[in-house]
Amino acid sequence: MRDKHYLMVPGPTPVPPAVAAAMSRPVIGHRTEDFAQINRQITEKLQKIFQTENDVFVFTNSGTGAMEAAVANTVSPGDTVLALITGNFGERFAKIARAYGAKVMEINFEWGSDVDLKVVEEKLAEHPEIKVVLATQNETSTGVTNNIAGIGALVAKTPALLLVDGVSGVGAIEIKADEWGVDLLCTASQKALMLPPGLSMLSVSAKAWEVVKNNRSPRFYFSLPAQKKAYEKWNTAYTPAVSLFFGLDAALDLILAEGLEQVYARHALLAKAVRNAVRSLGLKLLVEDRCASNALTGVWGPEETDVDGLRKVIKQQYGVTFAGGQGILKGKIFRIAHMGFADKMDVMIAVSALEMALAQAGCSVELGAGTRAAQEVFLGRAE
Amino acid sequence: MRDKHYLMVPGPTPVPPAVAAAMSRPVIGHRTEDFAQINRQITEKLQKIFQTENDVFVFTNSGTGAMEAAVANTVSPGDTVLALITGNFGERFAKIARAYGAKVMEINFEWGSDVDLKVVEEKLAEHPEIKVVLATQNETSTGVTNNIAGIGALVAKTPALLLVDGVSGVGAIEIKADEWGVDLLCTASQKALMLPPGLSMLSVSAKAWEVVKNNRSPRFYFSLPAQKKAYEKWNTAYTPAVSLFFGLDAALDLILAEGLEQVYARHALLAKAVRNAVRSLGLKLLVEDRCASNALTGVWGPEETDVDGLRKVIKQQYGVTFAGGQGILKGKIFRIAHMGFADKMDVMIAVSALEMALAQAGCSVELGAGTRAAQEVFLGRAE
Repeated sequence: MRDKHYLMVPGPTPVPPAVAAAMSRPVIGHRTEDFAQINRQITEKLQKIFQTENDVFVFTNSGTGAMEAAVANTVSPGDTVLALITGNFGERFAKIARAYGAKVMEINFEWGSDVDLKVVEEKLAEHPEIKVVLATQNETSTGVTNNIAGIGALVAKTPALLLVDGVSGVGAIEIKADEWGVDLLCTASQKALMLPPGLSMLSVSAKAWEVVKNNRSPRFYFSLPAQKKAYEKWNTAYTPAVSLFFGLDAALDLILAEGLEQVYARHALLAKAVRNAVRSLGLKLLVEDRCASNALTGVWGPEETDVDGLRKVIKQQYGVTFAGGQGILKGKIFRIAHMGFADKMDVMIAVSALEMALAQAGCSVELGAGTRAAQEVFLGRAE
Repeated sequence: MRDKHYLMVPGPTPVPPAVAAAMSRPVIGHRTEDFAQINRQITEKLQKIFQTENDVFVFTNSGTGAMEAAVANTVSPGDTVLALITGNFGERFAKIARAYGAKVMEINFEWGSDVDLKVVEEKLAEHPEIKVVLATQNETSTGVTNNIAGIGALVAKTPALLLVDGVSGVGAIEIKADEWGVDLLCTASQKALMLPPGLSMLSVSAKAWEVVKNNRSPRFYFSLPAQKKAYEKWNTAYTPAVSLFFGLDAALDLILAEGLEQVYARHALLAKAVRNAVRSLGLKLLVEDRCASNALTGVWGPEETDVDGLRKVIKQQYGVTFAGGQGILKGKIFRIAHMGFADKMDVMIAVSALEMALAQAGCSVELGAGTRAAQEVFLGRAE
């Protein structure tokens, strides 16, 4: 059954039929009233999900583009930037800032750990010259969720801006851009927003706009002032991926119809079931429950087992795709995504396939122990 | 997640993305060379699946339409028809024959059992006036597969025609129309052929054509001579469901690309896993393994449990739809389909959902015992 796949990587994620159907609508011109109406609706819906009254723009590019837009519009050459790094995507944010000539102060927390607020507080106190703080809501490479509320409260006391990479978090894990003091919040289409890749979203606070206006870095495609001007008529500065906008509108409807609280609770439940199952199979979780992501779960490969070989069996024999490790974790962990268009049965699929592949790899595993552990969570019978 | 469903009823069945994509192609006129080319391809592919060199026609109607076409073209008023009944769809075939004025001799085998060849042999010997024998390849209401090869060998020795309802069997369970002596073989789009409902297919042997020509029953939409004439130019007699033809062409490609042997082996494996799981949960199978269907499995409800209530929980809480019982089995059994676009993970979903619902209904069930039993089959560790 070559046509049957279970995509469980942390982006791209499966696309719901209603979203795919919306995307197959005939394309319309983007300089039309029809497009403006859709773009306006999308903005209002994104504001609900971002929990913000700030401007929210949609760019036609990947999430990295939104991160670059956030940096290019707020970081001028020579600016001091504090990068809070908990994995591969924290590193990428810092790299982008360096590409724009910033003096980047990196704080590297261990991969698999979250940001330590005390360290942030100290650094901010020691370095009043910090202009911008870079943080990751949900570190995709490890499955760690950082305390953005806590970081935001610290940065808010300073003139610095807080830029948050919410690419794999927004739509799966709560974020309150305004209440938590997130000045620029980035996300993208292909994670919890349940779309194919191709769009990114960025909100901009009033505090940020002051900096954006006076910024000296080059920017054209990523220009926030250009985008803001176009949005006055609910246009986009440059040609948007119209079909993806149709899909985004439909996907946001699905999220809001389910209800944000319910969406977050669903992700939390799936994550808890996966963790319980992984533990019951004798495998070690990469991340402590305290800061474990509800969007994906990082798992250490079993000892003396080829992790990527395990993933290959899971994909080829069961049609299930897990992600491997990135950077220093390459070949050491695998990652199971449970974000976006995911439900209880996806967990059962992930765990069943994992159990069988472990057995095939000669690991000592009790078939059914993982599925039972997940089921106990769903039935409310786990601690 | 209202948009996420796992359809496990014995038709309609899930539609593969490639088939859905083919169906969304722009509609074309059916009196065109383009349509004729597709219809010709479809016919050749259906002949491979039917294992026949006979004519094979596609009708735009449900499977019951094909059964009526088979009867209307071969049964004249007053003809003696032998109906081999093993469930609801065997009864339907007999009803259609009665509607056309046949004298129908019914042999009712127990629901959940298959046709006893000795009884057929006796009846054929006692009643040389039998013109037509009606048989069901795969009885959808119970999950029994009848021995069509055996029935065919007996009927072939007589002047009678063998009409076979293969609606829920063809594409999941081997059938050799020519070798086994099936004169008219009916099937439909929405079962193992992985399409939405709307099309039926019917093959007609040379032996059958002699009877069809002299038949005195009224027939217009279902006229085989009219259809044969249209097919000379690869047209259909009346307006075909063009989009479903596009989908059928794509679905047949999927089946033939996988390979008929592999398709049948996959169905056999899934069925074995489901049966092993059901047994390990302490539930009783409706059908002995000897004649159990590879396309669906009938299961007795646990004692003192509301079977349809159980199905409701499975659907509402896990998004999984099983079928209930029909006729005399209503409220007593449930049926799990594993046909068409189905793989190992569908079995894991079915069994996981069943386990949880049983636990919720207060049945004594070991969570994970069913999934383990299914996994053992997949890993080749079950007897």
